[in-house]
Amino acid sequence: MRQQNKKAVVLLSGGLDSATTLGIAKSKSYDCYALTFRYGQRHQIELNSARKVAASIGVKEHRIIDIELGSFGGSALTDFSIDVPKDRADLESANNIPQTYVPARNTIFLSYALAWAEVLKAFDIFIGVNSTDYSGYPDCRGEFINAFENTANLATAAAVQGKGVYKIHTPIIEMTKGRIIKTGTELGVDYSLTHSCYDPDEAGRSCGRCDSCRLRLKGFAEAGLPDPLKYVE
Amino acid sequence: MRQQNKKAVVLLSGGLDSATTLGIAKSKSYDCYALTFRYGQRHQIELNSARKVAASIGVKEHRIIDIELGSFGGSALTDFSIDVPKDRADLESANNIPQTYVPARNTIFLSYALAWAEVLKAFDIFIGVNSTDYSGYPDCRGEFINAFENTANLATAAAVQGKGVYKIHTPIIEMTKGRIIKTGTELGVDYSLTHSCYDPDEAGRSCGRCDSCRLRLKGFAEAGLPDPLKYVE
Repeated sequence: MRQQNKKAVVLLSGGLDSATTLGIAKSKSYDCYALTFRYGQRHQIELNSARKVAASIGVKEHRIIDIELGSFGGSALTDFSIDVPKDRADLESANNIPQTYVPARNTIFLSYALAWAEVLKAFDIFIGVNSTDYSGYPDCRGEFINAFENTANLATAAAVQGKGVYKIHTPIIEMTKGRIIKTGTELGVDYSLTHSCYDPDEAGRSCGRCDSCRLRLKGFAEAGLPDPLKYVE
Repeated sequence: MRQQNKKAVVLLSGGLDSATTLGIAKSKSYDCYALTFRYGQRHQIELNSARKVAASIGVKEHRIIDIELGSFGGSALTDFSIDVPKDRADLESANNIPQTYVPARNTIFLSYALAWAEVLKAFDIFIGVNSTDYSGYPDCRGEFINAFENTANLATAAAVQGKGVYKIHTPIIEMTKGRIIKTGTELGVDYSLTHSCYDPDEAGRSCGRCDSCRLRLKGFAEAGLPDPLKYVE
């Protein structure tokens, strides 16, 4: 009898980091359950990318959950009164937390992933955080992930009853953007389906100037590969 | 110049534990921001109780957030295909996690509270968890709360930038149900506004037989006070 694949919940945004993370989880023979959030994002494009990436890589199930993060405000990604920063001089400064930071976002995302994992009887959660090309988000660091993992193992019936130990996998946390893109390309991830820009135009073209575009472009340059996305001239 | 009150986010369900917790936060001169979740609960009654309790005790703001916990299933409180247990013999057994357990519920609740706290520039979060009259929920224990507090202080820009240290307050965690009710009564909490039953009838009367009703009734008996709620005969 063939051994059953292990199940994993994989957080999927539609960006290249989470697409690569899903590709990695899949390559390790997990049955993947992709989880995406609709949270007052400026753009539907991101959700469409997540759907295409999930279908392209192949998942057992893809859930898109509505969450009201935007109602709290406090971020340029959820609050229209704050401008998305462009052409920041200090893109790689670890001490500068940008206005695109969303309060407690990854804590909320991982909490939902944990809830779904417990229901699925899965103990593996994948998240595409990255701290090398550091964009200043505190909840992308290893210390945070370790603290959440510890919390997960105290929070749930499954853990307390000894049915398993939750593991938060962060396979790209120490990769450069170039390495992420090379790895994903080797695994067959189709980056033309992904989306990174915080502020695309009406035709869906990327701005090329926000932090997310600049990190992406730098990554493709490092990888020596062309970025398949269209950019505003 | 009068010193400004500190702000606190207080999780409020409409039950007696969270009502008492709000009363305690208020008595400590916090400006209280009450946070309630609509999560596929069986009964609107709970939300109405939360509204009345918030208004009665007095809060700066009360937010009710929709979350799709029910879509994952796995609990008698969110999944109609699972019966609410009645007359359990092992009500106080710490090793028996009941079917009313909702996967990762308090982790999700605290994550949202953290997000709102960061936006409000508050560092105090109150939650009415209780581990003495232990109902078998792993995410009501002090170890879990400490782990989440540690996570909060690594997750957020405010903490990482040294603007403050998050504290998760659990003022009733070690109180018996009787002590909780006595404390709240001394602080003027109106328990006629609260709601505890997992399975009320159409007229809103409590069943008297689910775990939540039985713990409540035991608490009023211990406190030597009458329960103002109506029960099914």
